[in-house]
Amino acid sequence: MRNLTQDNITQAVIARFAGTPDARLKEVMTSLVQHLHAFAREVKLTEDEWFKGIQFLTDTGHMCDDKRQEYILLSDTLGLSMLTVAMNNEKPAGCTEATVLGPFFVEGAPHYEHGDDVGNGAAGTPCRVRCHVRGIGGEAVAGAEINVWQADAEGNYDVQRPHLQQAQARGVLRSGSDGGFHFRTVVAEAYPIPTDGPGGAMLRATKRHAWRPAHLHFMIKAPGYEPLITHVFRAGDPYLDSDAVFGVRQSLVADWVAQPDGSRTLDFDFVLNPDRAGANHDVSLAGAS
Amino acid sequence: MRNLTQDNITQAVIARFAGTPDARLKEVMTSLVQHLHAFAREVKLTEDEWFKGIQFLTDTGHMCDDKRQEYILLSDTLGLSMLTVAMNNEKPAGCTEATVLGPFFVEGAPHYEHGDDVGNGAAGTPCRVRCHVRGIGGEAVAGAEINVWQADAEGNYDVQRPHLQQAQARGVLRSGSDGGFHFRTVVAEAYPIPTDGPGGAMLRATKRHAWRPAHLHFMIKAPGYEPLITHVFRAGDPYLDSDAVFGVRQSLVADWVAQPDGSRTLDFDFVLNPDRAGANHDVSLAGAS
Repeated sequence: MRNLTQDNITQAVIARFAGTPDARLKEVMTSLVQHLHAFAREVKLTEDEWFKGIQFLTDTGHMCDDKRQEYILLSDTLGLSMLTVAMNNEKPAGCTEATVLGPFFVEGAPHYEHGDDVGNGAAGTPCRVRCHVRGIGGEAVAGAEINVWQADAEGNYDVQRPHLQQAQARGVLRSGSDGGFHFRTVVAEAYPIPTDGPGGAMLRATKRHAWRPAHLHFMIKAPGYEPLITHVFRAGDPYLDSDAVFGVRQSLVADWVAQPDGSRTLDFDFVLNPDRAGANHDVSLAGAS
Repeated sequence: MRNLTQDNITQAVIARFAGTPDARLKEVMTSLVQHLHAFAREVKLTEDEWFKGIQFLTDTGHMCDDKRQEYILLSDTLGLSMLTVAMNNEKPAGCTEATVLGPFFVEGAPHYEHGDDVGNGAAGTPCRVRCHVRGIGGEAVAGAEINVWQADAEGNYDVQRPHLQQAQARGVLRSGSDGGFHFRTVVAEAYPIPTDGPGGAMLRATKRHAWRPAHLHFMIKAPGYEPLITHVFRAGDPYLDSDAVFGVRQSLVADWVAQPDGSRTLDFDFVLNPDRAGANHDVSLAGAS
């Protein structure tokens, strides 16, 4: 295997993966090499561009820590996250649709009781959120574990405030015997995704805006059902049609109803899909802190 | 742009790059999104695999510092580096072929005079290296700047020895009026590329060996000529046909001739290609430290 050329190197690299014991890993690596090389060949990547790519990937890694996941941000802005969600969450009609996890989920958020203030000091317009978790047959799903997280009035998540000691606008609840749960928080506002890293540089260089329409994140897990990772979006938001991460589903847009006292209320019911036998659901998202 | 599906999201993401002012960047991003999505679609990437990919890329970035470039290592082991080199270095017959830069180039190596010991304390069998730099027409190329770097008897580069204060087996020389330059060093030995990072985990999981055949790196720059980044390999090395980074060219394999006193001598002449008008050669490799 000497004197490889641009015409035969791809097959030579793929052949090197021939002894991979795990059939799925072999399939993924083979496809990855083919598409990576096809990209480089299609654009006739220059050595200068190759090196800029190396630097970009390195910088993106350096931007990641326990509170910032720049690679998820990059995957989100390139539509890879939503594509992956779409491919893996084809549910029967009537089930709540899934959308992207985003880079701001944190494992181990504080637990709250129904009616508690999950906002926990976050700035913003007061908001009451009242939800039910049901199965596709209409049955109440009791004891579901619900993670909720959101941006505050300034469009920041708690993890974006370096000096904050406690979780804000982020918590874990459990559905009651009727599948219901409710909590107080602040109204989530539209915000630009962080643009101080390589992902932001990419958006600027391509004249893309960084805004996401206002939304509340939910991750719902219950035995016997597929886990659901989704948002509820605010009707009327100007960014619903140009979400920087391509995550909007019309079925997830809801009225956050203005009340006479200036506060808002959001009512939303989630419908879970029964677990498919043998499906591996404990998506490593558990480690996504 | 709501309710994107796995069938229409790729076009939606590409459309978002429509306003990119730089035509080349637009071309590269469009192709990148197409191939990235095509890969995910072809393997039907699961959410668990997506997250493992995010973690792998993050870990690869975290492994990079001023002495370790894990992304170059990954690019090398996936054949992307050699593909890029091959596409960008089609030279007339008679010119010295190019190969990969590798992750161990360091800007600012010490300067040496002809005959000096570039080894500078590196362990290994003594070796004399005698070279000439010529143009394709046979003319001597005087004043060329030559970077040379290599592994020692234990297969380590100086930058892999954390406690080492000075450069070893790494230096910069200039060709004389006849295009010649010569120096002393130690015999380069075959070595495994570093396997303590994500790149090594990939090689282990796919049962690939990590070895590179013994070689001496050269980077040669001279006004009026294309820069040349290449190696000289040692004839007889058992890894010449299975280089972990796909970099071997038969024309770069040379005898490192054993001498009666146990030392070796290597004679090798480099033939540069004249600069193409307008070509941008200051490959950002200058920043590859």
